[in-house]
Amino acid sequence: MRPYELIKAKRDGKKLAPEDIRAFIEAYTSGAVPDYQMSALCMAVFFRGLDAVELGAWARAMLESGEVVDLSDTPGVKVDKHSTGGVGDKVSLSLAPLAAACGVPVPMISGRGLGHTGGTVDKLESIPGFRMDVPVSEYRRLVREVGCCLISQTASIAPADKKLYALRDVTATVDCIPLIASSIMSKKLAEGIDALVLDVKVGSGAFMKKVEDARTLARTMIGIGAEMGRKVTALLTDMDQPLGRAVGNALEVVEAVEMLRGRAPEDYTEVTLALTAEMLVLGRKAASVDEARQKLARAIQDGSAVRKFKEIVQAQGGDPRAIDDYGLLPRARSTVDVLASQGGFVTAIDTEAVGMAAVVLGAGRQRVDSIIDPAVGFTLLRKVGEPVKAGEPIVRIHFSEEGPVKEVKERLLAAYHFGPQAPASRPLVVERLE
Amino acid sequence: MRPYELIKAKRDGKKLAPEDIRAFIEAYTSGAVPDYQMSALCMAVFFRGLDAVELGAWARAMLESGEVVDLSDTPGVKVDKHSTGGVGDKVSLSLAPLAAACGVPVPMISGRGLGHTGGTVDKLESIPGFRMDVPVSEYRRLVREVGCCLISQTASIAPADKKLYALRDVTATVDCIPLIASSIMSKKLAEGIDALVLDVKVGSGAFMKKVEDARTLARTMIGIGAEMGRKVTALLTDMDQPLGRAVGNALEVVEAVEMLRGRAPEDYTEVTLALTAEMLVLGRKAASVDEARQKLARAIQDGSAVRKFKEIVQAQGGDPRAIDDYGLLPRARSTVDVLASQGGFVTAIDTEAVGMAAVVLGAGRQRVDSIIDPAVGFTLLRKVGEPVKAGEPIVRIHFSEEGPVKEVKERLLAAYHFGPQAPASRPLVVERLE
Repeated sequence: MRPYELIKAKRDGKKLAPEDIRAFIEAYTSGAVPDYQMSALCMAVFFRGLDAVELGAWARAMLESGEVVDLSDTPGVKVDKHSTGGVGDKVSLSLAPLAAACGVPVPMISGRGLGHTGGTVDKLESIPGFRMDVPVSEYRRLVREVGCCLISQTASIAPADKKLYALRDVTATVDCIPLIASSIMSKKLAEGIDALVLDVKVGSGAFMKKVEDARTLARTMIGIGAEMGRKVTALLTDMDQPLGRAVGNALEVVEAVEMLRGRAPEDYTEVTLALTAEMLVLGRKAASVDEARQKLARAIQDGSAVRKFKEIVQAQGGDPRAIDDYGLLPRARSTVDVLASQGGFVTAIDTEAVGMAAVVLGAGRQRVDSIIDPAVGFTLLRKVGEPVKAGEPIVRIHFSEEGPVKEVKERLLAAYHFGPQAPASRPLVVERLE
Repeated sequence: MRPYELIKAKRDGKKLAPEDIRAFIEAYTSGAVPDYQMSALCMAVFFRGLDAVELGAWARAMLESGEVVDLSDTPGVKVDKHSTGGVGDKVSLSLAPLAAACGVPVPMISGRGLGHTGGTVDKLESIPGFRMDVPVSEYRRLVREVGCCLISQTASIAPADKKLYALRDVTATVDCIPLIASSIMSKKLAEGIDALVLDVKVGSGAFMKKVEDARTLARTMIGIGAEMGRKVTALLTDMDQPLGRAVGNALEVVEAVEMLRGRAPEDYTEVTLALTAEMLVLGRKAASVDEARQKLARAIQDGSAVRKFKEIVQAQGGDPRAIDDYGLLPRARSTVDVLASQGGFVTAIDTEAVGMAAVVLGAGRQRVDSIIDPAVGFTLLRKVGEPVKAGEPIVRIHFSEEGPVKEVKERLLAAYHFGPQAPASRPLVVERLE
């Protein structure tokens, strides 16, 4: 089928054959199909969707456009977690060492932050010396020997997705569930995993604001996994306020390490444990979620989780002393507090706005080439449902440059909503799908 | 509104502001908006449509991307006709001199044939010396002095449409009524017309096979005309068989001149008179269609129509003697007849297939750069509803090269359908809209 015919067929709601999808994506990657044909097809997919078989073919073609890491020399079921992104989402930082400490090999390729959400790469790189641009041979060795390796995406992984993502970004075809799902799955499956836990965030700080959309995305990714012979479990988790109390790269590393020591905020701890427990079950290190939770509690209590984190940091060139002495991490020059404009309870936090305030402060990126400051960020002194008096501090801003502070303060204050009563509490894990 | 936001807004079914449409099309024409953004927008328009105000803005932006001829120095209401294209459609050739002979100034920009439909430019250029690449200044002078000028599209007319049409052609966004309608109207309004008669063809030889689609297209173009302050009347006319009996450039010129002498086939004569009568009404040369029909009959009877045609031919460099002596027109070397495979009645003619057979013979173009032979073509000896005996000639092929004749014969035979009874006759003018 010629490119024109394929676009027309999808436009008219017809089902595309897997071999036609593969040929189109291969031709797009090589440049034989120009951007303007791919953007027309993506818009047709936006309106017509892709069914399970089409999605499998689409994701597989993107996956196989680049290197697929072979981890068969590492015994056991390799499991990773993927989050759709949120604010204060440092789950990967504690989940990876926890799962590895419990015997699940964790191969994890992460991205940088963009827009209002942070990225695991930026967070981990705030640890002095920590390198994520590890060659694939070294990545394979560390998964085998350390039980975990966290690297940044390389050009050799799913180049079709890289090219397509840039195009979708400028043609209003990003927020299209089949395209999101196949993009995520093609990258994740290139890591060499056997199973995957999905953390689909839902709420004001997530890309999916509604539960129905989050559920559809989760089901779509589970379907692609099934088409490609991989087990996928998804949790829909709350992102209607930032997760934990730390927002900003080095600040989030501290909170993650504290979690491994059993001293982190309850919401962040609970979401991490729920997701890691699923990894242990998929990785056959626990027969049930309950058994997995017990193993995780033990790994925190006996210090093996935090030891595993230090081991990972050392293996990837980082300074493991920073895990015990937070003073070795980048630290902002000053802090200033945002004060509550009125008393009562925090009724809501516009989480995307908090993420954008972090970008303005320099903790995140507006554009791919923005330079970030690993030290700056926020400590949320009040979260949703907590009581506050007028004039009491609600957020501590950690900053190094005075410049953006005024705007950041205003943005944070506007993001907080107060009322006379605490709102009904929302469940942290909204739904489980597999 | 940035290009991305505009694409997204249309994708989400929102109404676009005229100034945003204008800015997008201007940026596309200049190259600031790349093809991949325009193709995404066109696909979104395919699914979401454009309302009357959006369409007006879209057509106006394309119109104003190039030169808009000012014919205000010619008194009277300038009226043109546009046909959506068919097989044997030589209406423009007789309509333009008829309307001009009755006092309506006719500025007409025409296209070349492409695919199964013929083009006015190819037909007129079969008259020795006739030139249609007339400069705009000359075009204006001839409309004023002769009352009619027929030219081919120039690069200076609606360049945005030219660029966009090439893109739509490769991104499966050609058969989209708002885009078709705005493309046609932007080119037509650039001629400097005050009013327009539309001949929307419907049937097996037309782009619109169904009456509903033809009606929607007609209404859409009338709407654009209204948005831009131009009166538009549309007739839906039958294209379920070729119009008249001549198919092929020089052959159609002869039939057109015969029509001006009152000696052409009834269907072609009737469609031409119906459309030209609407032009006289719009051009305020007749108070009603009936009065217009009387004036037209007189112009044929008193020879003023054919005299006007000679005047036009002479003004544009052609040899007016060819209008009296058809031997001066290109003539094919040989003819051969296609014989009926069975007796009975002609029940249907696959008109698009006849058009494609003409392309194979060399009368039309498969591609924009194909070279045509003005002399070759067909005389349809039998049309739908006419009786025929097995072995009787049904089509005469006029050819110069033996090569394609065998294939052309087979195609024509396959295009004709026979049966024991004549089918119910179809109205020539299916509907009138204004």
